[in-house]
Amino acid sequence: MEKGSGQKLWKKAKKVIPTGNQLLSKRSERFLPENWPSYYSRAKGCKIWDLDNKEYFDFAQMGVGSCILGYANEEVNGAVIEAIDKGSMASLNSYEEVQLAEKLISLHDWADMVRYARTGGEACMVAIRIARAASRKDKVAFCGYHGWHDWYISANLGEAKNLDEQLLPGLKPNGIPRELKNTALPFSYNDIDSLKRVVKDNPDIGVIIMEPQRNENPKDNFLERVREIAKQIGAVLIFDEVTSGFRMNNGGIHLTYGVEPDMAVFGKALGNGFPISAVIGKLEIMEAAQSSFISSTMWTERVGFVAALKTLEIIERDEVYENLLKYGDQINEVWTKAAEKSGLDIYISGIPQLTHLSFKNDNPLVSQTFYAQEMLKRGYLVGSSIYATNAYSEEIINEFGKLTEEVFLNLSKHLKNNDLLQKLEGPIIESGFKRLN
Amino acid sequence: MEKGSGQKLWKKAKKVIPTGNQLLSKRSERFLPENWPSYYSRAKGCKIWDLDNKEYFDFAQMGVGSCILGYANEEVNGAVIEAIDKGSMASLNSYEEVQLAEKLISLHDWADMVRYARTGGEACMVAIRIARAASRKDKVAFCGYHGWHDWYISANLGEAKNLDEQLLPGLKPNGIPRELKNTALPFSYNDIDSLKRVVKDNPDIGVIIMEPQRNENPKDNFLERVREIAKQIGAVLIFDEVTSGFRMNNGGIHLTYGVEPDMAVFGKALGNGFPISAVIGKLEIMEAAQSSFISSTMWTERVGFVAALKTLEIIERDEVYENLLKYGDQINEVWTKAAEKSGLDIYISGIPQLTHLSFKNDNPLVSQTFYAQEMLKRGYLVGSSIYATNAYSEEIINEFGKLTEEVFLNLSKHLKNNDLLQKLEGPIIESGFKRLN
Repeated sequence: MEKGSGQKLWKKAKKVIPTGNQLLSKRSERFLPENWPSYYSRAKGCKIWDLDNKEYFDFAQMGVGSCILGYANEEVNGAVIEAIDKGSMASLNSYEEVQLAEKLISLHDWADMVRYARTGGEACMVAIRIARAASRKDKVAFCGYHGWHDWYISANLGEAKNLDEQLLPGLKPNGIPRELKNTALPFSYNDIDSLKRVVKDNPDIGVIIMEPQRNENPKDNFLERVREIAKQIGAVLIFDEVTSGFRMNNGGIHLTYGVEPDMAVFGKALGNGFPISAVIGKLEIMEAAQSSFISSTMWTERVGFVAALKTLEIIERDEVYENLLKYGDQINEVWTKAAEKSGLDIYISGIPQLTHLSFKNDNPLVSQTFYAQEMLKRGYLVGSSIYATNAYSEEIINEFGKLTEEVFLNLSKHLKNNDLLQKLEGPIIESGFKRLN
Repeated sequence: MEKGSGQKLWKKAKKVIPTGNQLLSKRSERFLPENWPSYYSRAKGCKIWDLDNKEYFDFAQMGVGSCILGYANEEVNGAVIEAIDKGSMASLNSYEEVQLAEKLISLHDWADMVRYARTGGEACMVAIRIARAASRKDKVAFCGYHGWHDWYISANLGEAKNLDEQLLPGLKPNGIPRELKNTALPFSYNDIDSLKRVVKDNPDIGVIIMEPQRNENPKDNFLERVREIAKQIGAVLIFDEVTSGFRMNNGGIHLTYGVEPDMAVFGKALGNGFPISAVIGKLEIMEAAQSSFISSTMWTERVGFVAALKTLEIIERDEVYENLLKYGDQINEVWTKAAEKSGLDIYISGIPQLTHLSFKNDNPLVSQTFYAQEMLKRGYLVGSSIYATNAYSEEIINEFGKLTEEVFLNLSKHLKNNDLLQKLEGPIIESGFKRLN
């Protein structure tokens, strides 16, 4: 495969940016080492153009789940550009932050107040601060992925594998104060006993934070039972909906399950790719923010609020979540059918709106690398997960399906011939958290 | 004074947003309680229009120091809008983040690598994380203001007044894990002995972070001596240039003083109001980022990088820092002259580019409230500090000066008549960190 300009720049980037970029999930090594286009010049709908102006359909991440309406959505961009023309920053506040608060509260009956940040991890940190201030206890029980902040990664200070079940294995706690050891305690999804054990061993837990859903559906009233335990021990229950929000319905995924937290956190999809995140919560909890200093200049900028207001308007008006489900289901069908036809063993997990593909064989990463390599040649960006976007169409997914069948058949053939590894034109995909060279 | 739409919305906001907004420095109570316009509809150059379309000159904060080139700068907005049209988020990386890294490194000879965040406090947290990972020690000695994060506010867990000398008195450590007590240790600006004491009492300090300059000029080689101590004890020295950067020269203020840190943090002015912040540092320190998990979706968004690149281009091309000095000096002259003419006792501090006015009398906040109230009537937003902007002109400042003289003369008269308090049309300004009602 001819090396494009993107790979050249990626090599250069690693010399001036430690880890090469700002997000693990955008490292080339996670998709197709040495051959991934790495950088984009333009993006529109579900298409991306790389630095050499090659065009791809994005069947990977759609901005790591942020561009739920598609890239460069005209309505959102229109509202944002109008706000920029009128000045996106001033010494006075943006009135749109109040409108957005009212909107988020109207979508979540149980919530009374809202604070904002710009990134998902930062919003989780705001939520944890407020929850700790409200409960007056420091310890946090958690389940799932909640970003890069000290409060969370400190879990690995106790037991280096504490975070291994929580999306990203091997996260090192370097640079986290050792004093935070045993302040963040993990429990496992759909394993209520694991939470009970944590609670029993730590009578001073003030906060329970979890992703209400990531890969599995909740079983045996798991969410209700977590809610009950939080109530019993007087802990603030936070649902981290940074990834899940606005994909399954017109708000937090918890609305579908009918379980009310004390706080919820939104990010990613909220601004269709413009940086904005939000913490919503009950009055008596959120008021604790008044007793703590939580303040940042850039949180006041207008674009985030305007983008979110327009995104939420479109999601509601067009019932975007219905399309995401439809497209997610169709993608799952495509994979299932292609696997059947080619005799491949695969495993699909996650909600359809954020569906995850694994190959089941001796070296699944080799298969995944081959799949990405061959789809890239055909003009498709493919990873192990697909965030469905409203910019897909049945036709686009059908075409993706045809090409996936083609590649799966080749993949199957090479697996049988035992020559799949030789067919790779670069190194095998790296998973998890690793040092880059 | 007639209540405007802004005050009505501000009252409403406090019901749905704890503390009313996202930034202490944009609270109405800090400028003119019950009468501040609070929200803007439009901003351009150094002018702001409120919700009732009343026009004001901003002689307060210029977006809390972010809009160094003025509001809605056409060149920056043009570059940003082009980026938005081409898609401001994608599954691939923004190539502009590499260009911006190269630019920041070229402006700071001593630096080799760059990471980004979106807000200043977040970037300081990234810097602290990397520095702790590099030094393998947890304790931080600090001087100045560094945001809302746990690592910093934890200083008040030890001694409730630790942060009182550091810009914002009275910050409560509610919601900060008590385990962090004594991990962040304050020292005083221009008091090298205070740092020596901290270092002597805490042999395990791995990081020294400070604002290289805020209100006072460094005296007796203060910065050099801090640099020397950091070297002696093997601590990473971070200059927090979030507020100071690109105001005094074409980069960090430390370039003027010729003292090289191991890392520096930029924010505010970097993107002329668009959210972007950066951490720069030496290779051997920055590489520690590879051993820690520091990652966020929204840090990859394109607008921040594009805005910063264009902002830095303009600052360099137009030598904007020269204008900021000129305008800052002129504002100081205006205040000095007006005070002399009216017989008022005032105190001016800070660098001219970020100049601070205090009234010297029995109740300086009453004077400040009267000044803001009367200037607002004349179409000027005035607080206790002015961030100079390139959007000022000598004529604009002259006019500001004329009206300031007028108000100072009235102020002086009412002080002599002992009826100043009766002349206030609302409550006195609140300073510091207080619970809002």
